[in-house]
Amino acid sequence: MTEIRPGTSAAPSASAGKAKILEPTYEGDFVLSEPMSLECGRTLANPTLHYAVYGRLNAARDNAVLVCHALTGSALVGAWWPEIFAQGAVLSLEHDFVICINMLGSCYGSTGPGSVDPETGEAYGPDFPLVSIRDNVRAQAQLLDSLGIRKLRLVLGGSIGGMQALDWTILHPNRVERGLIIGVAPLGAMGLALNHLQRQAILHDPDWAEGRYLPQRPPRRGLALARQIGMISYKSAPLFEERFGRNPNRSGDDPWCVDEKGSGLIGGRFDIAGYLDLQGQRFIERFDANAYLAILRTMDTWDPLRGCSSAEEAFGRIRAQLSFVGISSDWLFPAETVREFATTIRAAGVRADYREMISAHGHDAFLAEQADLVRLLQ
Amino acid sequence: MTEIRPGTSAAPSASAGKAKILEPTYEGDFVLSEPMSLECGRTLANPTLHYAVYGRLNAARDNAVLVCHALTGSALVGAWWPEIFAQGAVLSLEHDFVICINMLGSCYGSTGPGSVDPETGEAYGPDFPLVSIRDNVRAQAQLLDSLGIRKLRLVLGGSIGGMQALDWTILHPNRVERGLIIGVAPLGAMGLALNHLQRQAILHDPDWAEGRYLPQRPPRRGLALARQIGMISYKSAPLFEERFGRNPNRSGDDPWCVDEKGSGLIGGRFDIAGYLDLQGQRFIERFDANAYLAILRTMDTWDPLRGCSSAEEAFGRIRAQLSFVGISSDWLFPAETVREFATTIRAAGVRADYREMISAHGHDAFLAEQADLVRLLQ
Repeated sequence: MTEIRPGTSAAPSASAGKAKILEPTYEGDFVLSEPMSLECGRTLANPTLHYAVYGRLNAARDNAVLVCHALTGSALVGAWWPEIFAQGAVLSLEHDFVICINMLGSCYGSTGPGSVDPETGEAYGPDFPLVSIRDNVRAQAQLLDSLGIRKLRLVLGGSIGGMQALDWTILHPNRVERGLIIGVAPLGAMGLALNHLQRQAILHDPDWAEGRYLPQRPPRRGLALARQIGMISYKSAPLFEERFGRNPNRSGDDPWCVDEKGSGLIGGRFDIAGYLDLQGQRFIERFDANAYLAILRTMDTWDPLRGCSSAEEAFGRIRAQLSFVGISSDWLFPAETVREFATTIRAAGVRADYREMISAHGHDAFLAEQADLVRLLQ
Repeated sequence: MTEIRPGTSAAPSASAGKAKILEPTYEGDFVLSEPMSLECGRTLANPTLHYAVYGRLNAARDNAVLVCHALTGSALVGAWWPEIFAQGAVLSLEHDFVICINMLGSCYGSTGPGSVDPETGEAYGPDFPLVSIRDNVRAQAQLLDSLGIRKLRLVLGGSIGGMQALDWTILHPNRVERGLIIGVAPLGAMGLALNHLQRQAILHDPDWAEGRYLPQRPPRRGLALARQIGMISYKSAPLFEERFGRNPNRSGDDPWCVDEKGSGLIGGRFDIAGYLDLQGQRFIERFDANAYLAILRTMDTWDPLRGCSSAEEAFGRIRAQLSFVGISSDWLFPAETVREFATTIRAAGVRADYREMISAHGHDAFLAEQADLVRLLQ
């Protein structure tokens, strides 16, 4: 059931240049043997999970670690989180067998809106169903079963990766020893607002074509704007102030003059605008608009307390030792919210500690300042 | 030079329902007698300033107060800031002669992108030039000259209105006794980023048509999205959390189900999304996209320190007594930034104090919590 294929380049590393990118031991696809009933009531026909592994599974099969990636990440955790594998850091290529699985809905190998729906013979497109965090965890568990892994020494992730990590400890209390949940709690109203804005940026692009866009004509401008809206929430105002301030764009624009087209309404860009434009351009070269919409929704709808009458009911089954990390300058998932979330879970009888990463970098700090994160966790 | 015309309804009051809307003593247009040379190097042919006045100018002509409106405000200060006129509050209809002048670039009566360029006989559209805050102040001074007003007891405003108020005290040091500057400093990198996002939302709308859209077919979706991006910066995360949390949209959407069109990618809205959509819809009924672009740029480019070698050079001429107000939950113009700005100006030898409005409301607090603002200023 496991197809091995050569490593492919997917999401660029957030830390490129900081640490050596690690190549996976192997990278492959796992196809679920049966149709999957989703929380939303729909069925996904035999979805594929694309995954990468690093290190070797030991004979006792008790050295497995699951890393869950963030919104637009890939299974190639060695590319986007290499410093976590540094000598004496969180993970060890010598001692651990590290698995990272691309989320359903993504465009990095697992089944998503760009995949062919076997029932129609065409890409799912906008008909791709809502796949919840729990659905992802249930599918991931089947992959681990196929690898003969019953126990996880550790499951960890930041942002939406942390949502998956926590749901692992809830849904499979006897399979997880430790959970490390970074920069996340159920999305608050401001986070839901930011996702709503991003969604609209894509939906307003005429090339989105109700989600049935041609591969050669995707909604580039809408997806680029969505990414830019996302970027302001991943970084912090102090970081932007330090890096860009009120400087004119370094490529030579003059914000005080008319723009190239002569319009007095637009003008040259400030440096922060040039930076955001570049981020948008880079993103549309690597990500798909419908996949982005799919995962935004997976993120929006995650709330382990939903439908539960108490925190005990939601979290009481957890047996793992949990650690939560808040990031001091994060305004998408504020540290205070993460701390309160950890407190709620601890009050439900779970072993849970909370640590705070002091960083000006904002939400992205767990990717951008990996060495600091490692120090915090030691 | 002063044409009196009946009051027209413009920007709806942010405090509608809280305090009685005040009708202006009169509302009219002032047309500059000569073409106006702008800071950007271009000329605006005999621009019109639309303005409203409240109360009566006394015989000594020393009871005049100038109120400068915020981004999408109008000259009708009695409609959007009525509580400032309450008994014992900041302004008095009995003792003050209050003037409020619509900004150049706006769509509420003063010359803007929707006005006819006398040189071409057509609307300026995207050719409307960059009008700086200083340009606005210079035009406003001519209007006051025409009314025989040499001295202002007070000039005040919040947000971009505060930019105008401060520039009044810099450009006309002998005409202003006091300045009250609320929730503003030169826009930082995060604020510039937010304006960049809003600008793109409009420019990406195919109906924008490079700024030459038909009056009956304006870029509604782009302008609505721009307003929504603006709204998240005018409010605070705690306010959103308290009001909307993770509730489903009160009109009945279900975020966990497929949307009406059956797409799994979109789904029902959360309450915050319904609120933002409503704000966007309301806005496109009252504001023009090119006017919005014009004033965003006026705001972006304001920086009294630009081109000055020192704060003394920028602010040393000020003779007025200044008061700055920061708003504790404002993240567009953070209170700390306003405080530092006031400190810089005080260090240049200006009489300036700083007060902080403790509010969960965010930047909009000066409009949304007027009674609290009045108490702070008493």
